[in-house]
Amino acid sequence: MAVGLLPPEQLLPVRGFRLSSVASGIKVAGNTDLVLLVADEGTQTAAVFTKNAYCAAPVHIAKRHLDQATCRALLINSGNANAGTGQTGEADALLLCQEVAEGLGLSKTQVLPFSTGVIGEPLPVPVMQDGIKQLQPMLSEHSWLDAATAIMTTDTIEKGISVQCTIDNELITLTGIAKGSGMIHPDMATMLAFVATDAAIDPYSLQQLVRTASDESFNSISVDGDTSTNDAFVVMASGAANNRLLSPLHPEWEVFVDALQQVSLHLAQSIIRDGEGATRFIEIQVSGGVSVEDCKQVGFTVAHSPLVKTAFFAGDPNLGRILAAVGRSKVEDLDMQRVSLSIGDLPVVENGEPSALYNEQDAAAIMGVEDIIIRIDLGMGDAQACIWTTDLSYDYVKINAEYRS
Amino acid sequence: MAVGLLPPEQLLPVRGFRLSSVASGIKVAGNTDLVLLVADEGTQTAAVFTKNAYCAAPVHIAKRHLDQATCRALLINSGNANAGTGQTGEADALLLCQEVAEGLGLSKTQVLPFSTGVIGEPLPVPVMQDGIKQLQPMLSEHSWLDAATAIMTTDTIEKGISVQCTIDNELITLTGIAKGSGMIHPDMATMLAFVATDAAIDPYSLQQLVRTASDESFNSISVDGDTSTNDAFVVMASGAANNRLLSPLHPEWEVFVDALQQVSLHLAQSIIRDGEGATRFIEIQVSGGVSVEDCKQVGFTVAHSPLVKTAFFAGDPNLGRILAAVGRSKVEDLDMQRVSLSIGDLPVVENGEPSALYNEQDAAAIMGVEDIIIRIDLGMGDAQACIWTTDLSYDYVKINAEYRS
Repeated sequence: MAVGLLPPEQLLPVRGFRLSSVASGIKVAGNTDLVLLVADEGTQTAAVFTKNAYCAAPVHIAKRHLDQATCRALLINSGNANAGTGQTGEADALLLCQEVAEGLGLSKTQVLPFSTGVIGEPLPVPVMQDGIKQLQPMLSEHSWLDAATAIMTTDTIEKGISVQCTIDNELITLTGIAKGSGMIHPDMATMLAFVATDAAIDPYSLQQLVRTASDESFNSISVDGDTSTNDAFVVMASGAANNRLLSPLHPEWEVFVDALQQVSLHLAQSIIRDGEGATRFIEIQVSGGVSVEDCKQVGFTVAHSPLVKTAFFAGDPNLGRILAAVGRSKVEDLDMQRVSLSIGDLPVVENGEPSALYNEQDAAAIMGVEDIIIRIDLGMGDAQACIWTTDLSYDYVKINAEYRS
Repeated sequence: MAVGLLPPEQLLPVRGFRLSSVASGIKVAGNTDLVLLVADEGTQTAAVFTKNAYCAAPVHIAKRHLDQATCRALLINSGNANAGTGQTGEADALLLCQEVAEGLGLSKTQVLPFSTGVIGEPLPVPVMQDGIKQLQPMLSEHSWLDAATAIMTTDTIEKGISVQCTIDNELITLTGIAKGSGMIHPDMATMLAFVATDAAIDPYSLQQLVRTASDESFNSISVDGDTSTNDAFVVMASGAANNRLLSPLHPEWEVFVDALQQVSLHLAQSIIRDGEGATRFIEIQVSGGVSVEDCKQVGFTVAHSPLVKTAFFAGDPNLGRILAAVGRSKVEDLDMQRVSLSIGDLPVVENGEPSALYNEQDAAAIMGVEDIIIRIDLGMGDAQACIWTTDLSYDYVKINAEYRS
């Protein structure tokens, strides 16, 4: 079902990290639903979380634990988001952290909990406690693909990538997995992404890098970066590669930045390609803005428009819908007489007037393929941004109407 | 298909206004698609238009003509929005105004054009010119219902209402018709509403009143008031009722305000009830806000959430989706621990904690009916607002994916 996306053939082990996954019984269908990731001592962890005021119990706890201690383990479950569960939800998540900590000889604040799935229902704590007992003896460096499977909810395909680079003549590996909301505009469904690397990196630089990497990947897909109750992007660096400590002062810093960006972008785009009901992968390139924020605002307004989305589902070049979305994007001093639009390489509107080169037959052909590029030039400045999104299909409605059944 | 809405049984004539409609050939299916409304001399007209920067040619012209002259006629077509048509679109609309004006002995600036339908295609001017010639001899005070039919696009039902009141012992009639976007979040599809009354009213007061009436009706439905290329709400007052000139100083001013509000609210809610693919009519009451704007922002964030909408389509009380939408509504200082939510009369969350009274069986029963009320208390202040919306169904996607086919 995913648009132009196959499951990863293999995911490389990363020195310093072991994982395991199990079908604990949270998911009624009996699929794997609980993952334990354990990191060696000395690992640095940085993360960004949802900005939604209504964030789930595990997000509260993960943030608090990250502030209090050095993270050594992640406990990730699918099938239940532990959101909207009030104080019980926090107590449940803490109990499970404690369970993991005891088995590994850690303090509970060294364990971060992550949950994704249905909201408003309490975690099935006893089955998860049993699951944790099963997970610990199974830990292995080679279980990344299984973990990618176990964190899926409405995802139709595993999302993961491994990238290698050389820094200080040491081979550095980055392996990342993610689960999509799958949603096109996911107020709710959770996007989780976990990246591990054996690079040695200064903790402050790592945290800064995670922010910028997420801005240009997870925060540029039409999954409002700040809207889910459970969203998280976590990067862990074990330092096992023995490179000199990475920071912006390191001569090969950009090599690592590029590698992490490659991983983040692949995971973010995979989420869109496996968007619920997606039949199209749409890249919206906005240029000519006064600021990057303006360009993003235009891109997201187009990306969130149900009318634009349904037109792409139909493969119908009803392109005025795109211009109407641009027009209502609330960018200051926007003048539609300076706006140009093209789809693929076909000009649609140039400086506000219909292009003489435009014809509906060519437009329909461009919209008939799976991967589509829209270019919008605002004619105001030099800033640009890129947003990725998908279409709105019958299956989107079906998946979200029937999610809990 | 419309949720709890029947077509109006009759629409009352309003002294001073005559209408006619015809199947000019804009709509391929041969339905009526062109309406002429002619008002007697002395009629006052006030209007609000879309705030979209990408507004259609007829909107530009209607605004300009309203500034330049006293409006005496409206020419309304369905089937083609004359949007995204550049300078040709303006020239076409002007030509048609000229055509109407010549037949009626007016200047073209006394004619306002309105269009709704497909965008990006030129108006079929010759067939419309023929249509105008047919319309003029057919003008009648009794053609309101026919006009309500002729302005429909994806609407499944005519929308109209007549309300009468007594002011200065004179019987005052207000008759209004509207066409829905039909859309739940209509970046594009046009909402048009026309109200005529025989009341005599001061022009400045009329313009002010149209703004406030639209704020509490058309701008409170999940049709972003400012987002379509063609949206317009027009109120015309002929003064034929011979009441003393209405203004806020008139002792019975509120009687007229209430009557106009009743008409506006009915038309606005009718648009939602006939929302594309709608199976539910949802009223979102937001209270406890610091400002009305905050309350509206929360209401619209919930109303626009595809996840909330699909849950309502499914009749599935996945109510955390509502709280997640509240949480990301970007209201300043929002504290989810002070937020309460109920559906119908069933408390879901009280001050951030799950309510002991909540049970899923009752919630499912409430969500199973067509008309649903959601109450959200922000626990911050005394302001409140009400937003009306609908669900997101397979048919929404079908209608919008196949609109042009």
